[in-house]
Amino acid sequence: MRFDEELKTLKDQTRFNKAFKVEQHKNIVVAGMGGSGISGKIFSELYTKEPVFVVDDYKIPDFVDDKTEFFAVSYSGNTEETLIAAEEAKKRGSHVHAITSGGALSKSGYDTIIIPGGLQPRSAIGYLLMPLINTFIPQSKGDRDEAYHVLDEMDMNNGEMKNLAVKIYEKNLIPVIYGSSPFRNIAYRWKTQFNENSKIIAYSNYFSELNHNDTMPLKDTYRKDEFIFMVFSSSDNRISKRIKITEKITGTEFKMIDPVGDSNFVRMLYLVHYGDYVTYHLANMRNVEPQDVSLIEELKRKLSD
Amino acid sequence: MRFDEELKTLKDQTRFNKAFKVEQHKNIVVAGMGGSGISGKIFSELYTKEPVFVVDDYKIPDFVDDKTEFFAVSYSGNTEETLIAAEEAKKRGSHVHAITSGGALSKSGYDTIIIPGGLQPRSAIGYLLMPLINTFIPQSKGDRDEAYHVLDEMDMNNGEMKNLAVKIYEKNLIPVIYGSSPFRNIAYRWKTQFNENSKIIAYSNYFSELNHNDTMPLKDTYRKDEFIFMVFSSSDNRISKRIKITEKITGTEFKMIDPVGDSNFVRMLYLVHYGDYVTYHLANMRNVEPQDVSLIEELKRKLSD
Repeated sequence: MRFDEELKTLKDQTRFNKAFKVEQHKNIVVAGMGGSGISGKIFSELYTKEPVFVVDDYKIPDFVDDKTEFFAVSYSGNTEETLIAAEEAKKRGSHVHAITSGGALSKSGYDTIIIPGGLQPRSAIGYLLMPLINTFIPQSKGDRDEAYHVLDEMDMNNGEMKNLAVKIYEKNLIPVIYGSSPFRNIAYRWKTQFNENSKIIAYSNYFSELNHNDTMPLKDTYRKDEFIFMVFSSSDNRISKRIKITEKITGTEFKMIDPVGDSNFVRMLYLVHYGDYVTYHLANMRNVEPQDVSLIEELKRKLSD
Repeated sequence: MRFDEELKTLKDQTRFNKAFKVEQHKNIVVAGMGGSGISGKIFSELYTKEPVFVVDDYKIPDFVDDKTEFFAVSYSGNTEETLIAAEEAKKRGSHVHAITSGGALSKSGYDTIIIPGGLQPRSAIGYLLMPLINTFIPQSKGDRDEAYHVLDEMDMNNGEMKNLAVKIYEKNLIPVIYGSSPFRNIAYRWKTQFNENSKIIAYSNYFSELNHNDTMPLKDTYRKDEFIFMVFSSSDNRISKRIKITEKITGTEFKMIDPVGDSNFVRMLYLVHYGDYVTYHLANMRNVEPQDVSLIEELKRKLSD
């Protein structure tokens, strides 16, 4: 499947409707790395009724025990860190669930939801995310239908994202993406998509924390014009005000991205898909293969030597 | 007090010995922004026996309730986000504690530890951190004495940090700092110190997550030679191996920083102070005032207009 074809599957992925059965618990831990782990990071911002911890490491926190619902998320099912983390949670007596398309994780005897394979993990974000959403924050039919149509529209018409890619391409700019709650981790998702799809260095940060440090050099540091600052607009007035004032007093041009959708669920998917298309178009312009992650594969091979 | 004199107070700050009395609780939340909030971020990595959540936002998670021990950390005592977050926690019935040198926070009737004023918040990291450490992970006299002597030694002899600053200064490099657990947030601390003290753009990230995305462009992206990659060495063999392989297969030079100290407590302080000196020396070379954060002050004024 070509990468643009992979991207077009996202709308259908949001219809994936499997959910887990969970036990009585004190906290929730979601373990996963990179393109798989981003699902836990995004989920942890959307669901705050209970403590949700994200683990993107070999080690799990000491508090994980038999009152923890533990979710191991790995598209390939063979991610070293996630397998080790899940094994340790099992030893501690946690109720371990898995979201995977196969691999060792699917054979570990955990309570598993198998998702369709054949995609790049980062293109399977819908499959990786929906089991968590369906379990803890099931969406109404209306919201799910809206998500489908918003994504479908983006698949048919993404010239705006292409224009943004042109801007970055023409001056070899370094993307910086500023998010804010509950979409901080979508700014991080964009960063990782620039890294993996477009093969360029990129960074993300979030309001209002960035006003306490990142803002300081924006007025007259060196190399500032080598960056492009892309900012998700916010429905929180305090954050909107901060964005406008920051832009003004630092003399920085912010390229604003306005999320479309009536709910956080739809807006989240819109912002994710927007970044997918910007980074995909940029890869094409740069003549790099968006699907190629051979360097990461080489690293994994050398690690197991 | 000159900024280098502020830095030299850190060793004495680690002798600050006040602790909180805590009630029975289900989770811990530490709220704070920027140079104050970093204490909660560092603490959350050192203390994992219980769920510790960091809040650097106006909003607190929905799960915060009367079983939450809530710590509001603001050096000035007037940080907008932290005051709003603490007020909301109080409404929910949380047991609210405060760490501050004064301001509105000191007058809110919370269970408060007053710390000495007169420093930049980011120079008061010892005062801001020790009440949390003393309460939950009290350090032995041996470790505290070692910390004192390690920091004292750095105050007397920081030519190594100055040399690193020279390297950044000569080519106008963009610092990137790679940490790993339990020192991920010290990489972030360095980033913020480059921002506030040296007034330059900087970024941080952490192993092994960065191997799943950040690594990809390091081989042949544009502008790579405009960055300098500083990496904290790790006592975890899996992470050390990743660092070495990443350096090799991407052809990137990593400037390694080796933490000194027998315990995580001492190593944490060593790494923090190392970054303090690099960013301080760089500010001097760039002829900018490390204490000046007038732009952040201007933003705060305009926010309250």
